[in-house]
Amino acid sequence: MDLEAYLSGFTDGEGCFCVSLNKSKRHSLGWEIRPSFSVSQNRERSEVLELLKQTLGCGNIRPDPSDNTLKYEVRCVNDLVERVLPHFDKYPILSSKRRDYDLFAEVCRRMYDGEHLQAEGFDQIVDLAFQMNPSGKRKYSREEVKL
Amino acid sequence: MDLEAYLSGFTDGEGCFCVSLNKSKRHSLGWEIRPSFSVSQNRERSEVLELLKQTLGCGNIRPDPSDNTLKYEVRCVNDLVERVLPHFDKYPILSSKRRDYDLFAEVCRRMYDGEHLQAEGFDQIVDLAFQMNPSGKRKYSREEVKL
Repeated sequence: MDLEAYLSGFTDGEGCFCVSLNKSKRHSLGWEIRPSFSVSQNRERSEVLELLKQTLGCGNIRPDPSDNTLKYEVRCVNDLVERVLPHFDKYPILSSKRRDYDLFAEVCRRMYDGEHLQAEGFDQIVDLAFQMNPSGKRKYSREEVKL
Repeated sequence: MDLEAYLSGFTDGEGCFCVSLNKSKRHSLGWEIRPSFSVSQNRERSEVLELLKQTLGCGNIRPDPSDNTLKYEVRCVNDLVERVLPHFDKYPILSSKRRDYDLFAEVCRRMYDGEHLQAEGFDQIVDLAFQMNPSGKRKYSREEVKL
């Protein structure tokens, strides 16, 4: 069986491609843009998280403090661009979650190129982030995240 | 990409192999044993349910009245044994959900052979069903389901 296709199917159901925005004094523009690929699973059924970590060769598995689940997560932009995106470009998400993936990939690639460090690039990336997961909750409105 | 492996991965995350037991006057032993393979998904992300239905060549997709989801479900024992089980035997579930699948497959095959129509076979199948999904809720206890 093609394990990589299996893992993409699993991710289609259980995975999340997210970009969160947080106020940050450590960042020169005052905001941190944080892309994250994560997959959560009940603790007693975490085998597939281990397979994901092994196959993608990056990320961490840790308890999710909000409930009795484990979460596999990749936050490092280099790992996202060099390991996670190539997997999902080759074994693509087939549901409409693909739209979020495409936006996520664009955000990651722009950050990989350092575009978020300049005001114009930052603004474009924030626009992309606000097009994602429209049903999800955001801490800040688009108007609040300005420079 | 290997679509069939993808669908097994999706099912590992989102699918359910269940056997429910219901009192029934229509059944000669007084109980109906109902195996069901189902996968639920938010209405706006139902593409993979369609791919499952096409690939397995059986089952139905319908709204789940309890929430705003769609459910793909196969209940027909012939379809389960002739179409669903061969798929998951070839593209197996990799998480510990596999244990439920193995019990489910055994229940389906015994029903396919008509074993549930005799008291002894019925009892053995009910034993198998009670080993499944131990965290799930059951309407009846093992003691109640007796002949």
